[in-house]
Amino acid sequence: MAMKTDPGRFFEDFNIGDRLIHATPRTITTGDASLYLALYGSRFALTSSDEAAKTMGLACAPIDDFLAFHIVFGKTVPDVSINAIANLGYAEGRFLAPVFAGDTLNATSDVIGLKETSAGDTGIVYVRTTGFNQHKVGVIDYVRWVLVRKRDNASPPPSSVVPELKSALGGDELVVPNGLNPRAYDTSWSGQSARFDDYVIGEKIDHVDGMTVEESEHQIATRLYQNTAKVHFNLYNESRGRFGKRLIYGGHVISLARALSFNGLGNALFVAAINGGRHVAPLFAGNTVFAWSEVLDKAIPKGQTDIGALRLRTRAAKDHPCADFPAETADGKAHPSLILDLDYWVLMPR
Amino acid sequence: MAMKTDPGRFFEDFNIGDRLIHATPRTITTGDASLYLALYGSRFALTSSDEAAKTMGLACAPIDDFLAFHIVFGKTVPDVSINAIANLGYAEGRFLAPVFAGDTLNATSDVIGLKETSAGDTGIVYVRTTGFNQHKVGVIDYVRWVLVRKRDNASPPPSSVVPELKSALGGDELVVPNGLNPRAYDTSWSGQSARFDDYVIGEKIDHVDGMTVEESEHQIATRLYQNTAKVHFNLYNESRGRFGKRLIYGGHVISLARALSFNGLGNALFVAAINGGRHVAPLFAGNTVFAWSEVLDKAIPKGQTDIGALRLRTRAAKDHPCADFPAETADGKAHPSLILDLDYWVLMPR
Amino acid sequence: MAMKTDPGRFFEDFNIGDRLIHATPRTITTGDASLYLALYGSRFALTSSDEAAKTMGLACAPIDDFLAFHIVFGKTVPDVSINAIANLGYAEGRFLAPVFAGDTLNATSDVIGLKETSAGDTGIVYVRTTGFNQHKVGVIDYVRWVLVRKRDNASPPPSSVVPELKSALGGDELVVPNGLNPRAYDTSWSGQSARFDDYVIGEKIDHVDGMTVEESEHQIATRLYQNTAKVHFNLYNESRGRFGKRLIYGGHVISLARALSFNGLGNALFVAAINGGRHVAPLFAGNTVFAWSEVLDKAIPKGQTDIGALRLRTRAAKDHPCADFPAETADGKAHPSLILDLDYWVLMPR
Repeated sequence: MAMKTDPGRFFEDFNIGDRLIHATPRTITTGDASLYLALYGSRFALTSSDEAAKTMGLACAPIDDFLAFHIVFGKTVPDVSINAIANLGYAEGRFLAPVFAGDTLNATSDVIGLKETSAGDTGIVYVRTTGFNQHKVGVIDYVRWVLVRKRDNASPPPSSVVPELKSALGGDELVVPNGLNPRAYDTSWSGQSARFDDYVIGEKIDHVDGMTVEESEHQIATRLYQNTAKVHFNLYNESRGRFGKRLIYGGHVISLARALSFNGLGNALFVAAINGGRHVAPLFAGNTVFAWSEVLDKAIPKGQTDIGALRLRTRAAKDHPCADFPAETADGKAHPSLILDLDYWVLMPR
Repeated sequence: MAMKTDPGRFFEDFNIGDRLIHATPRTITTGDASLYLALYGSRFALTSSDEAAKTMGLACAPIDDFLAFHIVFGKTVPDVSINAIANLGYAEGRFLAPVFAGDTLNATSDVIGLKETSAGDTGIVYVRTTGFNQHKVGVIDYVRWVLVRKRDNASPPPSSVVPELKSALGGDELVVPNGLNPRAYDTSWSGQSARFDDYVIGEKIDHVDGMTVEESEHQIATRLYQNTAKVHFNLYNESRGRFGKRLIYGGHVISLARALSFNGLGNALFVAAINGGRHVAPLFAGNTVFAWSEVLDKAIPKGQTDIGALRLRTRAAKDHPCADFPAETADGKAHPSLILDLDYWVLMPR
Repeated sequence: MAMKTDPGRFFEDFNIGDRLIHATPRTITTGDASLYLALYGSRFALTSSDEAAKTMGLACAPIDDFLAFHIVFGKTVPDVSINAIANLGYAEGRFLAPVFAGDTLNATSDVIGLKETSAGDTGIVYVRTTGFNQHKVGVIDYVRWVLVRKRDNASPPPSSVVPELKSALGGDELVVPNGLNPRAYDTSWSGQSARFDDYVIGEKIDHVDGMTVEESEHQIATRLYQNTAKVHFNLYNESRGRFGKRLIYGGHVISLARALSFNGLGNALFVAAINGGRHVAPLFAGNTVFAWSEVLDKAIPKGQTDIGALRLRTRAAKDHPCADFPAETADGKAHPSLILDLDYWVLMPR
C-alpha cells in the first residue's frame, strides 16, 4: 500500500535535464475570463470585446495574458515549488500566442539549473516552463528560479549549473499575435489617445487608482489558477507561521498592477514578454495596491510597422499612492511601500 | 510628452449637445451571468433557464436587466462622474431589448442639461445615456444627473438648461421584448401563482429575506461592471475620507433589491423601465439588506393582451426587516433604515 | 388580494405520496463551472479539461458532480426545508448521468415518509428528490430527511411512515457514465499514479491541505446554487440567533472535502453515490477545513472491467490538520474538530 499523497520534490529530487510533465489539463472558458475581469477590473479592449478582437483580425477576444500565465504557473507549483521557501526570480518570459476560450492548456518544465546554497540546507532550482494548447502550440514560456528545501542536509550537493539568462529580451524576440492587424485599432475603445509614438523612454506614469484586496478575492483568484501553494489558503497554519496570516499570491499583485496600468497605458493591448520580476515584499488582505510605470525602452518587433513594443518597469506599492514614484533609495534599498518590481514588454499600436 | 492619465471632466468641460463616446466595448458572456447570479441569488426563470426562455420565444436566456444596466452605467463613469460628488437621480430609463450572452455593449451619453449650483463650486450635469449592442440596436436608455466639481470656482457659469423629465413613463411607452410569447409562461417555474391580475394598486409586499453584503462581493460586482468609481475600491483613501470606509455602489443595492423581490414578485419577468431612483443613504459592508415593494400603478403595454406592467416602488433598508414597510415619516424624512427608493416598471404575464 | 410571499410548508403540509414540483429551472454554464472551480480549487482532470473528457469518450468536460447536486438540492429548499430546524440525513443518493454546460436542470421531490416527534411540535419529513435535465433524463436522485416545525402544535399527528433505506448502495447499483472509456484515462492528468487496484479496504489517507473559508465565499457559492436557506446570508437575523453569526451551507463543506481529497485520491473521476452523510458540527467563516478519508469498500460496477468503485468515508475537520485521523472516541462521540462525516462511492480507473 503505497503512500497516496505526494510530499513534492525536494532539492535532491531535481536533476539537470529532467522534464517535469505537469498535471491538471485545463480548458479555459469565458467563465474564467469573466471571473478574472471581476477580480481585477481590467478594461483593455481586446480582452473585453469579441467585436474589437474581430476588427483586429482575431477570432474572438483572447483571455488576459496574465490569466494564461497564472494558469500555466499554477500547474508548476506541485512539481516545482511546493517545498520552496522563496520564489527568487523570472526571466525570458514570452507570450507566444494568444489563448482563447475553448483552448486547453498544459505545461511542462525543464530543469536547467541547480545550485546548492552555502548553508547546505537549501538549493536554487532553475526551470524553463512552457505552457501549450491542445494543438501543442506553445503559448507561454519563461524561466523561474526558486529556493527549495533539501530533504536531508547531509545529501551531497549536485554540480552547480547556473543558466545564462538575458537581463531582457530584445524587441526582435517579441511575438506579435498571428493575423493581428494593428491598423484596425481604435483608441475610442480605451478612451485614451496616446499611442506608441507618444511615449518617451524615461517617462514615468502614475496609474492613480488604488485597489484594496480582500482575503476571499485572492483565494478565489489563486484557486482559479489551480495554484496549490499552501500559504495562500490556510489560515490555521499561517496564523502559526512567519507572518501570522495568509500571504497573497505574487501573481495577484501582477494582475492588479496590470489592471491599474490601464490608466495611462490603455492602449497596451498585449503583454509580450516578462524580462524579470521581483516580489519585493509580501501583500496581505486589507492593503490597498497602487502602481506606477517607467518606460525603459522602445522597439519595433521584427517585421512590424504598425505596432511597437514598450519596455516597462511597473512598480506596485501598498498603502502608498504613487504620485511620488516610490523607487529605490540612494543606498539601493527599496521604498518600504514597494511590493512588486516588474520588467516587461507590452505591445501598443503606433 | 502629453499627460497619459485622464483626470476626467469637471463641470466646465461639459457643453449642451456634447456626445460622449464611452470607452470599453464589452462582450457579455454566460460567465458574467453566472457571476451575477452568484452575487445576488436571483431566481427569475427567464434569466436562469435557456429552456424557459426558448419556450417563451427567445433564443436563449437573456442576462438580467440590471446586469446590462450596470455594464452600461459603468462605461459612463470615467466620462461623466469621476469628479462627481453625488449621483442625484435617474429618469426615463427604458429597457429596449434583451441582452444575450455573446452581445457586445457600447454606450454614448448626450449632455442635455447644465446648471451651476448657487455656491459656484459645483454644477449639475444631465446626460441621456444609450447602451447599444453590436448591431447598433439600443438596449437601454436613461437620463442621469450628477453633481460635478468645477475645476476652477472662478469659471463663469454656463447658461442653465434643465431638461423636462417625466416623473414616470407611461405604460404605453414600455417595450415588450420582440417575439416574446407571454402565454407560454408557466408559473411552476417560479413556484408562485400570482400573475398580473392578482396584484392591486396600493398593495404592499414585504420581501421577507435579508442579504448581508461583504466587501469582496461589492468589489467583485462593481469591477465586473468595469465601473471605476474610486470610493468603492480604495480603502486607503476612503479610510481618510467622509465615511472612513468603502462605499458600496448604489447599483449593487438595486440588484439586491430586485433579487430579494423575487419573494412576492416571482413572475415579474423583465424590468421595463426606471422612472426614478434615489440612493437615500449609503450602504456599507456588513449591513444586511431587506426590501419591500408597493404597487403604484398597473398598465397594459401597447399592442399586448397577455402581459401587463406593474409600476413598483421598491424600498430597500439596511439592518431593518421590512414587515413594517419602513417609508417616510410625517415630516417627509425617510425612515433611518432606508437606503434605496426605486420607482420602476416590471412586466408580468396575465 | 392573496398573500404574495410564501411562508413555506410546515409539517402539516406534507402528505405521503405528494410530489413537489420545484421551482427555478436552471441552465448550467461554463461560468458556473468556472466559479465552482474558483471557490473550491478542484483539480480532477475530467471536470477541468474538455480534451481529457473527449479522450475518455465524453462530449466535453462534465460539471463537478457536487455542483449538480447542490443545484438540485437548492431547488428543494423553498419547498422542503425553509421551515426546517435540522437536516437529519441523506441516503441512496445516486449520480445517474453527467451534467454538461448547456443542460437545464429541474427537480421534483416525492414525500416518502412522515413521523411526528414525541414533543409534538415538529416532525420528520422524508423526501426522495430527483434532478433531471432538459431531456427528462434523471441526473441525480437521493433521499433526504429533515426536522420540520409544525404550524400548530395542536395539529393531529399523521400516521407514521418511515421508509426503509439502505445503509449503503451496492457496487452493482452504481452508474458509470454512458460511453465512458476508462482505458483512455491517463494518470499524468492528475500527477498521481495510484489507480483502483492500489487502494486497500481500511486504508486511511490524510489529504494534508487546509482551506480557510470566508463569508463571501460561502455566500457566493450558496447563491450560485440558488439555495435560499436564510441562515447562510442574513447576519442581521443570525447575530440575534443561536450561533450569533451566519452558518455555512453544509454542502460547501462537502465540496471543500471533495476538492481537498484530490491530494491522495486524484484519480477518483466521478462521485457515483452518496450512501449517507452527517453535518457533525457547524462551520463558520474564518475556520480552516481539513479532511481525511478511509476506504470502506471496493467494488466493480456491473458490466465494467476497467473501472472500479471505492466506497469512501471522508471526514472533514475544522482548525485541525488530519494527520491523526480524527474520528470517534471510545464512547462514540465525534472528535470535537469534526464537521462532516460523508459515506460515498467514487469511480476510479483500474
